[in-house]
Amino acid sequence: MADKSRLSLNQITTTKWSVGEAVEGCVRHGISSIALWRHKIAETGLAASVRLVKDAGLHVSSVCRGGMFPAPTGTERKKNIEDNFRAVDEAAALNADSLVMVVGGCVGFGIEEARKMVADGIAALVPYARKCGVRIGLEPLHPMFAADRSVLVTIGQALELASLYDPQEVGVILDSFHIWWDPQVAELIARSTGRIYGFHVSDWLVPLPDILLGRGLMGDGVINNCKLRFLVEEAGYTGPIEVEIFNRALWDSDPDAVLSQVIERFEKFV
Amino acid sequence: MADKSRLSLNQITTTKWSVGEAVEGCVRHGISSIALWRHKIAETGLAASVRLVKDAGLHVSSVCRGGMFPAPTGTERKKNIEDNFRAVDEAAALNADSLVMVVGGCVGFGIEEARKMVADGIAALVPYARKCGVRIGLEPLHPMFAADRSVLVTIGQALELASLYDPQEVGVILDSFHIWWDPQVAELIARSTGRIYGFHVSDWLVPLPDILLGRGLMGDGVINNCKLRFLVEEAGYTGPIEVEIFNRALWDSDPDAVLSQVIERFEKFV
Repeated sequence: MADKSRLSLNQITTTKWSVGEAVEGCVRHGISSIALWRHKIAETGLAASVRLVKDAGLHVSSVCRGGMFPAPTGTERKKNIEDNFRAVDEAAALNADSLVMVVGGCVGFGIEEARKMVADGIAALVPYARKCGVRIGLEPLHPMFAADRSVLVTIGQALELASLYDPQEVGVILDSFHIWWDPQVAELIARSTGRIYGFHVSDWLVPLPDILLGRGLMGDGVINNCKLRFLVEEAGYTGPIEVEIFNRALWDSDPDAVLSQVIERFEKFV
Repeated sequence: MADKSRLSLNQITTTKWSVGEAVEGCVRHGISSIALWRHKIAETGLAASVRLVKDAGLHVSSVCRGGMFPAPTGTERKKNIEDNFRAVDEAAALNADSLVMVVGGCVGFGIEEARKMVADGIAALVPYARKCGVRIGLEPLHPMFAADRSVLVTIGQALELASLYDPQEVGVILDSFHIWWDPQVAELIARSTGRIYGFHVSDWLVPLPDILLGRGLMGDGVINNCKLRFLVEEAGYTGPIEVEIFNRALWDSDPDAVLSQVIERFEKFV
């Protein structure tokens, strides 16, 4: 099973906590990496967030999230790209392994058109990210999010987009919740070698309580997270493994109790 | 836009109606094809269903559904296959274009193991279906159903399984709700040439009201059904187009009003 030293707390799992509280939680529970969300960074302030993480000696596995490129007008799309520049600034300041991209959906456009806007957005973003030393992590989301969150839905599609850039500039984020169903998952993870910037775990509950807020703790659903971890390791990724759980019931619980459970399940099922 | 002569009423869209009522509804609204569900056939009786359809001069585009192969024991899996034999009998009696397969999920197994059980189930079913002159239509379901309904989730995967058999014995059912998100959808539909046994339409609503019962009428969501129809026609399929809508609100409405709407939306958006 996976070693706790590789566990990274994705802050959304304990969403009640501020950056400072999440950092303290990690220290208290012996977790050495954290992934921060931008709305939380904004609440605390970037400089203060950087100081909190640095003082605690934590590693930042990612900043969540950039992306959301598609928009009806050129002006709005430009504004979205500007916002991504600020996300790059934050990832740079926090020395994060990567800036995670949730690229945006297709409501109001055709899906092909939205995909073109995403490709254009990434093209506009990469030179700035390169200058700042920030890697862009393309995260394919589960196809059930194609309409409203991400027209990027398979590892293959993410690799195709990433292949336009240097492997040190654009890579992929593999999240077990989003990829477990793919009949080609083993082959596609192998093909991701050299471009894997992050690995996220949670579980798929049956029945699914909610599309957005229905993810489960590892071990409570049908995903073989351990097998996926093996595949990701065989493809050369040995970095932090983020536990990222969007779940209303967990969010309403005591974050310290959640973190204890997260560690237990990580050591048992990942 | 699509001609009404190609519209087939998938009975689930007007689920309040018995076989007899749905047949009468089709006649009343000038619809020439129907797809029947097995639980409805069971209520009316197979012989009576055959008579109703024949007397009305309706074409049966499909029988829904066989499949559901995975089970924990060999005895149960055998029982599931026996049940599929009965489904073949019904499709044969109704002279249906195909028997639609919803192959089953993976709760209680690994997804790879469930996929093996599905392949074994199809292998056991095909010789019987061949003897009865019934074509087996493999329907890839949206990946959000991988856990509880269908480990078959992409057209590519369905074609791979179908390729083990003659194009007149095993083919694919393309449902816009299940396939619209796929980045390779155009290429995969083209590759389906010669094996397309059916085409289903509905729409993906945003936000999705419900995973199972949240499909929309064509035109109410993000799917470009017309474009998918073109692709399917380019791949050589010119048969019936089933309107198959699982939607609680529609189910609670007056089926005649639903059918009027279905026709209007079909002529406008398909």
